[in-house]
Amino acid sequence: MKLGILGGGQLGRMLLQAGANYTAETYVLENDPRCPAADFCHHLVVGDIRDRDTVYRFGKMVEALTIEIESVNVDALDDLEKEGLAIYPKPAVIRLIQNKIRQKEFYQTHGIPSPAFVVTQQRSDLAQYHGFLPAVHKLGEGGYDGKGVVVLNQIADLEKAFDQPAVLEKKCAIAQEISLIVGVGQNGEVVVYPPAEMIVNPDLNLLDYQLSPARLAEKTLWVAEAIALKLVRAFQSPGLFAVEMFVDKAGEVWVNETAPRVHNSGHHSIEGNYSSQYDQLWRIMLGYPLGNTAPLLPAAIVNLIGEEGHSGEAVYEGLEQVLKMDKAFVHLYGKKQTKPGPKNGPCHHLVK
Amino acid sequence: MKLGILGGGQLGRMLLQAGANYTAETYVLENDPRCPAADFCHHLVVGDIRDRDTVYRFGKMVEALTIEIESVNVDALDDLEKEGLAIYPKPAVIRLIQNKIRQKEFYQTHGIPSPAFVVTQQRSDLAQYHGFLPAVHKLGEGGYDGKGVVVLNQIADLEKAFDQPAVLEKKCAIAQEISLIVGVGQNGEVVVYPPAEMIVNPDLNLLDYQLSPARLAEKTLWVAEAIALKLVRAFQSPGLFAVEMFVDKAGEVWVNETAPRVHNSGHHSIEGNYSSQYDQLWRIMLGYPLGNTAPLLPAAIVNLIGEEGHSGEAVYEGLEQVLKMDKAFVHLYGKKQTKPGPKNGPCHHLVK
Repeated sequence: MKLGILGGGQLGRMLLQAGANYTAETYVLENDPRCPAADFCHHLVVGDIRDRDTVYRFGKMVEALTIEIESVNVDALDDLEKEGLAIYPKPAVIRLIQNKIRQKEFYQTHGIPSPAFVVTQQRSDLAQYHGFLPAVHKLGEGGYDGKGVVVLNQIADLEKAFDQPAVLEKKCAIAQEISLIVGVGQNGEVVVYPPAEMIVNPDLNLLDYQLSPARLAEKTLWVAEAIALKLVRAFQSPGLFAVEMFVDKAGEVWVNETAPRVHNSGHHSIEGNYSSQYDQLWRIMLGYPLGNTAPLLPAAIVNLIGEEGHSGEAVYEGLEQVLKMDKAFVHLYGKKQTKPGPKNGPCHHLVK
Repeated sequence: MKLGILGGGQLGRMLLQAGANYTAETYVLENDPRCPAADFCHHLVVGDIRDRDTVYRFGKMVEALTIEIESVNVDALDDLEKEGLAIYPKPAVIRLIQNKIRQKEFYQTHGIPSPAFVVTQQRSDLAQYHGFLPAVHKLGEGGYDGKGVVVLNQIADLEKAFDQPAVLEKKCAIAQEISLIVGVGQNGEVVVYPPAEMIVNPDLNLLDYQLSPARLAEKTLWVAEAIALKLVRAFQSPGLFAVEMFVDKAGEVWVNETAPRVHNSGHHSIEGNYSSQYDQLWRIMLGYPLGNTAPLLPAAIVNLIGEEGHSGEAVYEGLEQVLKMDKAFVHLYGKKQTKPGPKNGPCHHLVK
């Protein structure tokens, strides 16, 4: 099968790495010819995943299509879907997830517990919501990885609010952040991975490290699983989904947001679970039986991120010490350049 | 680092798959542009691994070199080594292993237990060794995967003997066939994997299935490990080695032959051990600390081989049933064409 991936980052690279167990002919669309996925696909097509014509032409080369990042041109995907192309997930799901306003409204419409919110069109709208603080202001479109989100604790913070369409979401008393990865087969069959627990670095507003399985009371786990299942069924689309949730101090579970693709919170599944999230997506796309999500062993993930103040050629300090650890698995993303902050460097997993 | 692999078969593909965890720039030399490794390397160079000039020119493109098959031009490797290229294993080891006569003589010289043998130059030489039967006649050069080996049980079988330089090896009363994979670092550090036990199909003289760890008495395991370690130390070369051994009915351990590279008897280490044989070879070549050879779980391997009577486009029957097994891992080699017999099809692993 000819399978196209929109985006050539580290998630694409890892998807292709797992794909070497099967026999698909792979195509990657990505602007950067030196991207992490470039040398693990059969065909690299250099082009912009946000450009309608480029995505459409790329889609005509393949028999099925998936994404490794949401910021793709969905109009082209709509056209391709109408013409019969299999797309994982369906373009309608990507469209609603691309926009945080639509995403929140979807949760509301489908009775998915998610923090209370109002929609704001410009900064001046916030004046009427003083009583809604403390809250989190999230840009409707274009936010990514901690960008496009500001915390508004008090009225003085309102000047930091976005002057574009955004969601103002009531801040909840977060006890834990968890991620549940769910696979949905072409026939609607659903499999759920044990949840991972994300420990966030408050300065960078980025994942610091992660534990799997999450430390949850059994009833909380049941509720989280039920919510994730209800949500992916509402999407009515095959594919792989990472549902990010909060557990509040009262033990209630709330959906924060969903990624309709393989996700950084699932890296540990490569060694830690019988079928990894990447293997699972291949099984879904190839029409194979879904894989076993059971864990082999508990796992932790540490993301190595680009150091503050260093931009340029990537250097891996301390790699030797990590490689000496008996139960650590190292996955370098193969990025040539590093910048301070998110995911410019490698990540590694400890499976205890 | 620029790393070259001589050969582009399934072992090369799996080595490259593991290499995606690190950042080497990979080069593959292989005649067939549609070989299994073709789409998982940075640079595919189409050419003959047995041709001196081709191998030499390929070696000049890279900073280190390894093999995924022994039948390479060693004269070129000798030249490259003299000019400072790092080669895993050293060309001298490949040269002695390419020829079964030299290999047996090496075992003898270094006190490695291996079945008694005599060297024969032509078929007529065998007349004087009637008393040596039952024996196995092994072609000095060019044998591979069950080819180049005939069993001579009685005098009437002598007409099947090779009329070229060969080894006549006393048949031993085999109770078990085992394989020990050993990694040797650039600094001489050695790590050993738990042995695998190979169950051979007597009709095809090929591996039928495999268990790991092998069912061995503890003392037999100690002896096997000690012999494997003595052998790889005698090679005086970094690299990865699969030492194939017989355990006879008296519990004695004998070296059958050695592969100086990643080996089919180590596929299960991909999921079954903390550091797979492929990961281990990367660590050796990149100068990283050696990996943990401990098993996560016991494992079995079944090789799916090309069906008798079917040549042509590869078809995978029963794949769906295997993919439904909770603890099976499937690895298809991506070969476009299949032939009856060895390793034209996929393999899969069961980790219980």
